[in-house]
Amino acid sequence: MSIKQIMEPRSVAVVGASRNPAKLGAIILRNLVNLGFKGCIYPVNPNASEIMGLKAYPSVKDIPDEVDLVVIAVPAPQVPDVVRDCVEKMVKGVVVISSGFKDIGEKGAAIEEEIVEIAGKAGIRIFGPNTTGLLNASKRLATTFVPLSGLRSGDVSIIAQTGLFAGAMLEWLVTSQKFGVSKVIGLGNKCDVDDAEALEYLGDDPETRVILMYVEGVRDGRRFIEAARRVVGRKPIIILKSGRTEAGSKAALTHTGSLTGSSQIFNAVCRQLGLIQVLSFEEMVDLAKAFTLLPLPRGGRVAIASITGAGSVLAADSCVEHGLTVAQLSSRSLEVIQSKLPPWSKASHPIDLEPLVENMPKAIEAYKLALNTALNDENVDSMIAVLLAPHEYWRESKFWVSDEELVEVFTEIRRIHSEKPLVTHLMGAKPAVNRWTEILEEIKIPVYPSIERGVKALATLVNYTKTRIYLQ
Amino acid sequence: MSIKQIMEPRSVAVVGASRNPAKLGAIILRNLVNLGFKGCIYPVNPNASEIMGLKAYPSVKDIPDEVDLVVIAVPAPQVPDVVRDCVEKMVKGVVVISSGFKDIGEKGAAIEEEIVEIAGKAGIRIFGPNTTGLLNASKRLATTFVPLSGLRSGDVSIIAQTGLFAGAMLEWLVTSQKFGVSKVIGLGNKCDVDDAEALEYLGDDPETRVILMYVEGVRDGRRFIEAARRVVGRKPIIILKSGRTEAGSKAALTHTGSLTGSSQIFNAVCRQLGLIQVLSFEEMVDLAKAFTLLPLPRGGRVAIASITGAGSVLAADSCVEHGLTVAQLSSRSLEVIQSKLPPWSKASHPIDLEPLVENMPKAIEAYKLALNTALNDENVDSMIAVLLAPHEYWRESKFWVSDEELVEVFTEIRRIHSEKPLVTHLMGAKPAVNRWTEILEEIKIPVYPSIERGVKALATLVNYTKTRIYLQ
Repeated sequence: MSIKQIMEPRSVAVVGASRNPAKLGAIILRNLVNLGFKGCIYPVNPNASEIMGLKAYPSVKDIPDEVDLVVIAVPAPQVPDVVRDCVEKMVKGVVVISSGFKDIGEKGAAIEEEIVEIAGKAGIRIFGPNTTGLLNASKRLATTFVPLSGLRSGDVSIIAQTGLFAGAMLEWLVTSQKFGVSKVIGLGNKCDVDDAEALEYLGDDPETRVILMYVEGVRDGRRFIEAARRVVGRKPIIILKSGRTEAGSKAALTHTGSLTGSSQIFNAVCRQLGLIQVLSFEEMVDLAKAFTLLPLPRGGRVAIASITGAGSVLAADSCVEHGLTVAQLSSRSLEVIQSKLPPWSKASHPIDLEPLVENMPKAIEAYKLALNTALNDENVDSMIAVLLAPHEYWRESKFWVSDEELVEVFTEIRRIHSEKPLVTHLMGAKPAVNRWTEILEEIKIPVYPSIERGVKALATLVNYTKTRIYLQ
Repeated sequence: MSIKQIMEPRSVAVVGASRNPAKLGAIILRNLVNLGFKGCIYPVNPNASEIMGLKAYPSVKDIPDEVDLVVIAVPAPQVPDVVRDCVEKMVKGVVVISSGFKDIGEKGAAIEEEIVEIAGKAGIRIFGPNTTGLLNASKRLATTFVPLSGLRSGDVSIIAQTGLFAGAMLEWLVTSQKFGVSKVIGLGNKCDVDDAEALEYLGDDPETRVILMYVEGVRDGRRFIEAARRVVGRKPIIILKSGRTEAGSKAALTHTGSLTGSSQIFNAVCRQLGLIQVLSFEEMVDLAKAFTLLPLPRGGRVAIASITGAGSVLAADSCVEHGLTVAQLSSRSLEVIQSKLPPWSKASHPIDLEPLVENMPKAIEAYKLALNTALNDENVDSMIAVLLAPHEYWRESKFWVSDEELVEVFTEIRRIHSEKPLVTHLMGAKPAVNRWTEILEEIKIPVYPSIERGVKALATLVNYTKTRIYLQ
């Protein structure tokens, strides 16, 4: 059974659905109802006839219609019986939320083997155990027990070994990022569906453009490599591998029962395949943002414009340190900039925005001139701009730019130079930085909390582009 | 003339003060007035008799009272004459805001030499040129032309080569951080006051506990090393050096006329002296936060508690990768935790908070138990906790913690374990993360946007403690 039919189910049953709103099964049901799952929902609870306005059934067997997916949130020892009911009902797949399997040692491992055997014979696929399992934004499907407050559909998909991580991480993504999520596949103990199969599915999923992976241990190295090789030329795969040290590896073993393997080998595999390895979730989000909002650059020549001289120096350092080149602007471009500078200032690259702002009628015109000139230059492949986000308090100063001016000019810049990535870093008071971040990311210009993170994002796009050309 | 008297002036004149609110001189004056400078303010402008309700004077010479500090915001060619007036008036120091000196090449360098000569003979000290110069929070003094919306006094001081950077960086610090700033010394082209002298002053300043430096080039290496050696054993010095690459170095030369020197030598000096080198402003703020909010740890054994298993694994990896040790909890501590776990779960370290939350009456009690037990343990020197900041939407779930519960329990934890650093990372929806960040940092528990940044902060505290012991 392909996992596609289970990732995109027409009907879902929740075993362990409860009227006690604090119970995990209750939250799972509430998420399905509140997000507006596009299919039938069946609560399963022997002690209730109705939950959240839905008819409840004593067991999966008693549901009168076809059931594609069963979410199981009852204690581990009860799970084998539930799976037997699923066999009888001929469901396609189950998500086992409960922990207490391989993650707690031998005794749990025996129950895990039992459910694998029961389901395996009937062709039922298992996600987990010890996972919150699945999310499919376009179907409004979520099986997480973290209460979800919203969901924005997008083209970033996630394979996460660990469930709660996926739930909490999702809440952060949905509330902090402009990009949306398409699928989350929580693997947990991976007694059946594993990294490789999830990767294959997302590789073929037309709604997925960027793939993020949180991995503790890979179950089948050979199959994972084959799957990654097939997918990476079409879609970037950004991977956070934990259990890199002995201490981390030990923690992973008690957590998902994962054997984490050698870090050296994993690193070598990533390098060879062109997988993008990161060391934190924060870095993962930085890069996801770049891949989903920006075009791929033609090369590594970066233009820099900064409102502070320090920004210019730091950006130039960072470009070189990340293997990029500080672009050489054409003499024509420098002439255009010189024509708007005060007489005591000399046009050069990186472009110092400050004297332009001093000398031109409005700050926004200085930004427009500098960015358009640099992005027009045939020696430039991408750009980083360091801007001052002005506090209301700055209204009377030269640095003032209204939100309306910002939207108008930067929408046009992004439209005209749609084939060149532009990233920004904002300085200034936090409320202004936050407001400008919202505005710029809405028009697909990513904002990074440091110059260095912006440059790293550009460098990652450049490297992936090279990898892809090499792979094709 | 020691710079102390100029950093803590009783009176300030602003040359170039203007009634046009967009002019730099006007903003400088407005900042002084609005922040409530604790001394006399004299606007200087030959074409005005009164600005912002203050009597204006045609020149510095015409001010009837003593003037400690003169801020000069007129074009470079006019600066020598203003400095001559300052000599006549016997002022103690000047901040030259204007650029167009060494930063633009030979012609400007000649004017710079001229003012050094004029001022030098009279013992007048110069900050700059090409800098926004000085800030002293307890005196409510600021000479920046970035409109400041507020100022919180604290114990972090900054030496910044570049002016606008200091202004915009300051706005960010004041609006995003719970810690306050004491002094900012903007050096600019450093024709007189340099890194070493600024460092000596801050080393002796009783209001300064942590020193941040943004450096493009050091003017006098030998004197800088001597000053750093004297200060670093008493106060941590966190340094961001740019111009590390050829491209960055070139940008620095056009920016402040700085020769940036060899990165290898600079790195070696930092390592040998125990200066804390960072590669971004973001990292600098991360560490400043740790040093100002936390006690120094006795050693490198870190306790970990996490609401997500992934958090445990990532924290353990990160500790080891930063040269720390994942603590071994005593068997007594593990017994305490085991007593509150559900029967299927086994106490171990890192502490998994999730089964505790499931099994205890309230999430906050699980946090309290885990953190107090770990911090009480004699095998633990510091701790990182990964928590879920609950959205309003989670009110009915097991993860719910009210703001009141959070304040009460974490205030007590911080009070009882005042000698052990505790850092946190929060997962969940952005509004909840932001609200909890406010609450926790108010009670001196720093929150980091990633586990890895929190661990790095702990590692830096540990390394600095070792350095200090070695230096004393």
